[in-house]
Amino acid sequence: MEPASLLHLTRPDRARPEPLSVQLYRDLLAAIAAGRAQGSLPSSRAAAEALGLSRNTVNAAYDLLRAEGAVATSPGAPPRIIAPPVGDRRLAPNSRGLPQLHPRGRAWGAVERSGPGLMAPGHPDPALFPRDTWAMALRRATRQSSADSLGYAEYSGLPRLREVLARRLAADRGMDLHPDQILVTPGSQSSLALLALTLAGPGDPVLVEDPGYGGAKAAFAGAGLVPMPIPVDDEGADCRQAPPARLVYLTPANQYPLGCRLSLGRREMILAYARQHEAVLIEDDYDSEFLWQGRAIAALQGAAPERVACIGTVAKALMPALRLGWIAAPAHLAPGLRAAQRNLGLAANLHVQAALAEMIEQGHYRAHLHRIARIYGDRGRAFAAALRALPGVRVGDPAGGVQLAMRLPEGTEGLAHAALRAAGFGCAPLSGFCLGAPRSGLVSGFAEATPERIARFCAVLGQVLSAQTAP
Amino acid sequence: MEPASLLHLTRPDRARPEPLSVQLYRDLLAAIAAGRAQGSLPSSRAAAEALGLSRNTVNAAYDLLRAEGAVATSPGAPPRIIAPPVGDRRLAPNSRGLPQLHPRGRAWGAVERSGPGLMAPGHPDPALFPRDTWAMALRRATRQSSADSLGYAEYSGLPRLREVLARRLAADRGMDLHPDQILVTPGSQSSLALLALTLAGPGDPVLVEDPGYGGAKAAFAGAGLVPMPIPVDDEGADCRQAPPARLVYLTPANQYPLGCRLSLGRREMILAYARQHEAVLIEDDYDSEFLWQGRAIAALQGAAPERVACIGTVAKALMPALRLGWIAAPAHLAPGLRAAQRNLGLAANLHVQAALAEMIEQGHYRAHLHRIARIYGDRGRAFAAALRALPGVRVGDPAGGVQLAMRLPEGTEGLAHAALRAAGFGCAPLSGFCLGAPRSGLVSGFAEATPERIARFCAVLGQVLSAQTAP
Repeated sequence: MEPASLLHLTRPDRARPEPLSVQLYRDLLAAIAAGRAQGSLPSSRAAAEALGLSRNTVNAAYDLLRAEGAVATSPGAPPRIIAPPVGDRRLAPNSRGLPQLHPRGRAWGAVERSGPGLMAPGHPDPALFPRDTWAMALRRATRQSSADSLGYAEYSGLPRLREVLARRLAADRGMDLHPDQILVTPGSQSSLALLALTLAGPGDPVLVEDPGYGGAKAAFAGAGLVPMPIPVDDEGADCRQAPPARLVYLTPANQYPLGCRLSLGRREMILAYARQHEAVLIEDDYDSEFLWQGRAIAALQGAAPERVACIGTVAKALMPALRLGWIAAPAHLAPGLRAAQRNLGLAANLHVQAALAEMIEQGHYRAHLHRIARIYGDRGRAFAAALRALPGVRVGDPAGGVQLAMRLPEGTEGLAHAALRAAGFGCAPLSGFCLGAPRSGLVSGFAEATPERIARFCAVLGQVLSAQTAP
Repeated sequence: MEPASLLHLTRPDRARPEPLSVQLYRDLLAAIAAGRAQGSLPSSRAAAEALGLSRNTVNAAYDLLRAEGAVATSPGAPPRIIAPPVGDRRLAPNSRGLPQLHPRGRAWGAVERSGPGLMAPGHPDPALFPRDTWAMALRRATRQSSADSLGYAEYSGLPRLREVLARRLAADRGMDLHPDQILVTPGSQSSLALLALTLAGPGDPVLVEDPGYGGAKAAFAGAGLVPMPIPVDDEGADCRQAPPARLVYLTPANQYPLGCRLSLGRREMILAYARQHEAVLIEDDYDSEFLWQGRAIAALQGAAPERVACIGTVAKALMPALRLGWIAAPAHLAPGLRAAQRNLGLAANLHVQAALAEMIEQGHYRAHLHRIARIYGDRGRAFAAALRALPGVRVGDPAGGVQLAMRLPEGTEGLAHAALRAAGFGCAPLSGFCLGAPRSGLVSGFAEATPERIARFCAVLGQVLSAQTAP
């Protein structure tokens, strides 16, 4: 595309309340989605000149477009437009005259999720799923379920499960909540979609950690929100420079994917931010259950129950395919969220809910957590130690979770990722988690990290790195 | 509100492509959602005069607002504004300074769904749920599930279930599909939300049967679409006067709630409409399994697989709380829908999917359907016969389904409904299903219609009707 033709697509204006980069990003995204922009975008230098903007502004907009999967970038080349991504790209050749996805539908699918593979980030070890305990709990649930619960009445969750969860979250996570604040959902992704579709509107900014969780960014992009980065360092997310937003997404207990914990000072800062901007903090407590180094700090929710929507899941503790999660919502928002949940159809299976309630009540759930936390802790430390022995890899012992992020020398990320994928591993490039400046590294799960797999992973990675660093 | 102040909110313009009524409706809805319109709207006569429109146009817009729950109407009074409906109305008094639902979030919850009650429309009889068969199938599914299926990989459905469903839908419903076209979801409501969010954009019209299914209208309203009525008579939906739309929602096998079947002539008409407007037909096949009068006609999907998204569910055949449904999507749309499904988090529990596949494969599902269809058929005919014996009630024998619509004398609907609700019945006023001219009547389920309940229902209804028709 010629730089001058940008002027037909966008005219960022300082008088408007949004940052220039967001205006540019949004206009370009709309043009790309509508098919009005094709081929490649001008280089950031040429675009900045044509539009009278700084190059930083253009780069920020391009980064957002890349994060949404609307353009692909490679060093030294202008960003190549790859959207409208999902619907059209895969269409059969003879699809003319047939109905197509709406651009909004393409936005819901625009962020592609990681494919399968061994030790993929966020995956528990299926071999540790407590199959017999679960089968027994599920069977009893099926036999005992009441006529009431079989219908449509308890759409936001079985009362028994909501009570059990509220007690457990208060005791273990220091949360402050009534069972009516809990909405049981078919998993974290649907919790995120529900919050994104109800708490903000198209074009609204949402703060996300940078680097941060792709699933959250996918839900926000689908709902038409504009993800804005908050930088993450060793103390977690730093919101001091953050622009105003009504929605903030955070992983305080164990930052995804870096693995740090939100410091007390930063907690205060983010709570002050929420009060100042009347923002809702979405606290993703996805794997606080696996913190084995030191004591887990309490959930943010307990400090500001009226401003925090805390989401949880059994995906890591039991299995993703159970499709069971929850939102602990601010009390005054819960009725509205429940009404929306019903019309979005985000309900979880009744028997699965009853079985989880029983497992928690009878102590089987806690026993299972203890068991797998020990195993995952050992595997994580062994994996990190083996990685540290490789030239140029920087990684600390994971403090919890089921994945870790390793830093790699600049320029090696792509080759290392390709080699490991080819060897069957499901790791992901760290730069793919970044909205701002990309960091070179890999994110890998370790729940399935047996000694044999660790050895194979390190052999493949070591080979790439020695070839790169050889004189 | 003064009629003249309408001019600050809306200026419908014949030059724009949309009908004037839709422009008026949309502008008023936006004003109401944003809190810019409060109290009551002007009467349709005063509004028509102030805006220079016909009274029919204003009435059509008001009907749409009523259908969305944005205004309440009562005879002789101007429409009273009741939105922003869900979030704000139920807020605690001390909620100032706290984050609120976005208007979009309120739209998702704006259509309130029917409460609990005996013989509610669309409800199967929980006592007929095949508890033991299901418990056994579920147990085997838990023990047999593979490591692959436990993770995130098969998000759009277990391959085994998609194959079994594709075979069954081809054999029983004359459908033309490959297992890859099937997306397994947590039920029909989530299927509708997925289609609404991906196939059309905010403000786009969607044709719905009038009277028609509230759940579909709730999903469409949440997604910001504008439901436009297609009238229904004894031959089903008549799209001859329908305005252009990219999305059409239909219940061809057994119209909800009137119970008629789409005639062959009307099928041809709607297929021609879809070809002309490149529209997607959403065929809700929700209870085609219970057609016991004559032979079931094949699904529309089989006649135009590239333009029909057919949705199904086990909610009636087994139980709503299993949260299991599916979409048989046009092949060229399936990949895009799957990507959006993943980011919306609309996945069903793995073991439930495996258990259903087993029940179908082993013939238990078909045997169960035969059994309950006979029972429901008997109950439906007995209920209809008892109702016909009451003065002023018009109702035919149901041809299928688990609910029927009875017509009542004008002016009796409200009293009859209130009396039956007070007696514990979950029936709904027929006028609540109407977007256009309201029809007086009631919609009631009959799956739970035991002789004792039929007698009680008819006693309550009979008393209201005799009091009304007494000289």
